[in-house]
Amino acid sequence: MENKTLMTDFYELTMAATYFDMQKQNEQVYFNIFFRKNPFEGGYTLSGNLDEIIKYIQNFKFSVEEINYLKSLKTFKPEFLNYLADLKFKGDIYAVPDGTMVFPNEPVITVKADMITAQLLETYLLAEFNHGALITTAAKRITNEAKKDGKNIPVMEFGLRRSKGALSGLEASKLAYIGGCAGTSNTYAGMKYGIPVLGTMAHSLIMDYENEYEAFLSYAKSNPDNCVFLVDTYDTLRSGIPNAIKVANDFLKPNGYQFKGIRIDSGDLAYLSKEARKMLDEAGYPETTICLSNGLDEYSIRDLLNEGAVIDSLGVGDNLAAPNDRVGGVYKLAATVKNNQIVPKIKISEDNLKTTNPGFKKIYRFYDKKTGYALGDVIALNYEKINANKFTLVHPEQSWKQKTIKDYEVRELLVPIFLNGNLVYQEPTLIEKQKYCEAEYQSFYPEIRRIYNPYEYYVDLTEELCNLKSELINEYKGKSLVKTKK
Amino acid sequence: MENKTLMTDFYELTMAATYFDMQKQNEQVYFNIFFRKNPFEGGYTLSGNLDEIIKYIQNFKFSVEEINYLKSLKTFKPEFLNYLADLKFKGDIYAVPDGTMVFPNEPVITVKADMITAQLLETYLLAEFNHGALITTAAKRITNEAKKDGKNIPVMEFGLRRSKGALSGLEASKLAYIGGCAGTSNTYAGMKYGIPVLGTMAHSLIMDYENEYEAFLSYAKSNPDNCVFLVDTYDTLRSGIPNAIKVANDFLKPNGYQFKGIRIDSGDLAYLSKEARKMLDEAGYPETTICLSNGLDEYSIRDLLNEGAVIDSLGVGDNLAAPNDRVGGVYKLAATVKNNQIVPKIKISEDNLKTTNPGFKKIYRFYDKKTGYALGDVIALNYEKINANKFTLVHPEQSWKQKTIKDYEVRELLVPIFLNGNLVYQEPTLIEKQKYCEAEYQSFYPEIRRIYNPYEYYVDLTEELCNLKSELINEYKGKSLVKTKK
Repeated sequence: MENKTLMTDFYELTMAATYFDMQKQNEQVYFNIFFRKNPFEGGYTLSGNLDEIIKYIQNFKFSVEEINYLKSLKTFKPEFLNYLADLKFKGDIYAVPDGTMVFPNEPVITVKADMITAQLLETYLLAEFNHGALITTAAKRITNEAKKDGKNIPVMEFGLRRSKGALSGLEASKLAYIGGCAGTSNTYAGMKYGIPVLGTMAHSLIMDYENEYEAFLSYAKSNPDNCVFLVDTYDTLRSGIPNAIKVANDFLKPNGYQFKGIRIDSGDLAYLSKEARKMLDEAGYPETTICLSNGLDEYSIRDLLNEGAVIDSLGVGDNLAAPNDRVGGVYKLAATVKNNQIVPKIKISEDNLKTTNPGFKKIYRFYDKKTGYALGDVIALNYEKINANKFTLVHPEQSWKQKTIKDYEVRELLVPIFLNGNLVYQEPTLIEKQKYCEAEYQSFYPEIRRIYNPYEYYVDLTEELCNLKSELINEYKGKSLVKTKK
Repeated sequence: MENKTLMTDFYELTMAATYFDMQKQNEQVYFNIFFRKNPFEGGYTLSGNLDEIIKYIQNFKFSVEEINYLKSLKTFKPEFLNYLADLKFKGDIYAVPDGTMVFPNEPVITVKADMITAQLLETYLLAEFNHGALITTAAKRITNEAKKDGKNIPVMEFGLRRSKGALSGLEASKLAYIGGCAGTSNTYAGMKYGIPVLGTMAHSLIMDYENEYEAFLSYAKSNPDNCVFLVDTYDTLRSGIPNAIKVANDFLKPNGYQFKGIRIDSGDLAYLSKEARKMLDEAGYPETTICLSNGLDEYSIRDLLNEGAVIDSLGVGDNLAAPNDRVGGVYKLAATVKNNQIVPKIKISEDNLKTTNPGFKKIYRFYDKKTGYALGDVIALNYEKINANKFTLVHPEQSWKQKTIKDYEVRELLVPIFLNGNLVYQEPTLIEKQKYCEAEYQSFYPEIRRIYNPYEYYVDLTEELCNLKSELINEYKGKSLVKTKK
């Protein structure tokens, strides 16, 4: 990937020019990424794309071409552009690992850097976090519905063709795998990430032959170890499955090959899959699997299973690579450093929910010692320690919603990624991320994970953070007035 | 951009292996890209990303790394992989230029190539076409609502942070510009595509200062020629606008600089913009512009204007870079070549609308000679000529819907892009594409362009294509039966 430090909103640069002129280039600041709403009307969000953010930070350096372009705009002073040309990331980044369960208003990434650098990072970090969380969450919602008798039904991600450009689709393949997919159709993702690649045939293969039987037979001869026949080109029950069985009888079985499966991509998948199962069983192929696809999502998968559809695997495209929703992560100033002291900052909004949480913060998660389930999170100031015995969680908006907990274990969610510009984080492998993501997910009560109308998970502020917030709200009311400077 | 020929669905490769084994690697075929539904419940689609497709085709060549990866899968024969290693695009591509108005079922891209190459191109071409058409269409819908007294209100694309990964956002900036945006916040897109870059400040700048006045003043001193103050950090009417005016009075005016504008990013934009206009006028700044932003789309822009909001420019992010819809383009075999004869192919579906149009096809568009408006399109077989005097358009599904037209001009929509593997198309500049897109759009009746509940544009098939389709439907009914080959 080429270096793209200039992939930032233009206002980051005009603001940076201001900071430079005011000699604020060495002022240290803290920014947080957080979002205000879980996607898909759901009860949780799974983080993703920290790897992309790490790569971007490591390569953060304006190229000569980029500096020359900025020069050509005749907007910036030469001293400022010289400063930019030498700029490198020298700060700290704390973030939740990919696949972590996170919730609205939690500071999922904290950037500590000089004001100019911190400002320039905003756009790219948001683009990657927002995409990462969206796809990882979509994948977990979908793969979690794909369960029968407590056993996972493998879900293949087939979405590249419906992605928001092929490079977005490449990211999606990776993220869908972290979210629980068993493989991808994207061969490049297989090479780049080591994700299992899967796929057998499209309708075009069958259409290219004189008839369906010839098409299946030719395919079987070339790919005898990978025979999943697409059976819905003409007529699933009267043509597709009989032809597949015939090729199995005529060629696969006599030559010692396995009739691995069929795929149904149109029609009433519940009905067709049940009929298909009967036909395959009667023909002596009880091991032959049935794969279903066609615009599936978490709801249609649940419905199919409820209707008794016979499903051995699923292919999902659109709703993994291009789900119709967004994660709306934002990047807000949380504190500045003056005389080595952290000065918390706040952004007030008429809507209380949109008023930011000030200061350099941590997230603590409480787990029930007996069940292992997460009980609630608390956002704390960085220096705060959590009492090991008893804690009262208070709903940040409706303070009468309280829950006192005991017998818990506490875990801190944010881990250091960069310190003083150096990468201090060892990225897990993709399969480790997938396992971690599943463990994260399983550590929450099913009520929180419900795909529709979930129970709201407790995310509390410590008393100290609450008090700081109130103080700042009062203080900033004063600052907003017009100063008559005379 | 690195070469990514392997960015294709794995089944394209297993099918290609089949074609190779059957010695079909020299068989020439025709594939079409078409879609079945306009996005956003609208009446039209604007094409995009042909430039990305051209780049991909020009770089189409498996790298050593890619071939080695395929080898490592132990699925493919060495002869086949050697064949792939030498493969280049030697075929023809016909496509509609970027920014063309297109409609469901029209063959917007035709690929003629050997079966293996044609199959391998499917995934990437779809990913890029689908993204291209989605964003270009979204941008035209939005920019067209941004009109007052027939004059365009400039719309800036601010979407990078909400894009599906930063590289998807880069494409979106380009596509949004073709669709009518006046500029982008994405500085890299400015460099790469020559799009005007715009932007001034975020809330973080204001929060970093002791008070709003100091923040505005510092910014003005650094960026005196680019002063658009963000006025909603604390209180738009009681703090933001008075402070902006004060900085204009104290610094900009005395030093001969212009107070260019203000931006309002929250609250009731209609009310606030009207009040802002009064305040600016009374303070002696009638030329100072008002920019509005905050999750805007075509509907909210229309509502704001209907409510008398004062708008000089608009910033739109989410709904340009990451609209919540898809273009579902598909890639279907339309014909093969046997003994130098084109053999049309069809994909049957129980749903008539999903049955494909067979053969190597063209699209003709009829224009009213007097008004210049488009009257209807007809999909024809490649060799068919259109009668110059009179034509009867027949609705493809409801044949009683007919319209006989006269006094028209006919234009062919598909243009050759590659012939025999050579690029024969000269890409227009981005600004030319933007102008072409607007001309395309303006050549349609407003009823078709309506953002909600539009009138359906006529897309007809010629009698000859209709007859061919019926013949093939009957013929293929026979082919679908199980052949007892004995």
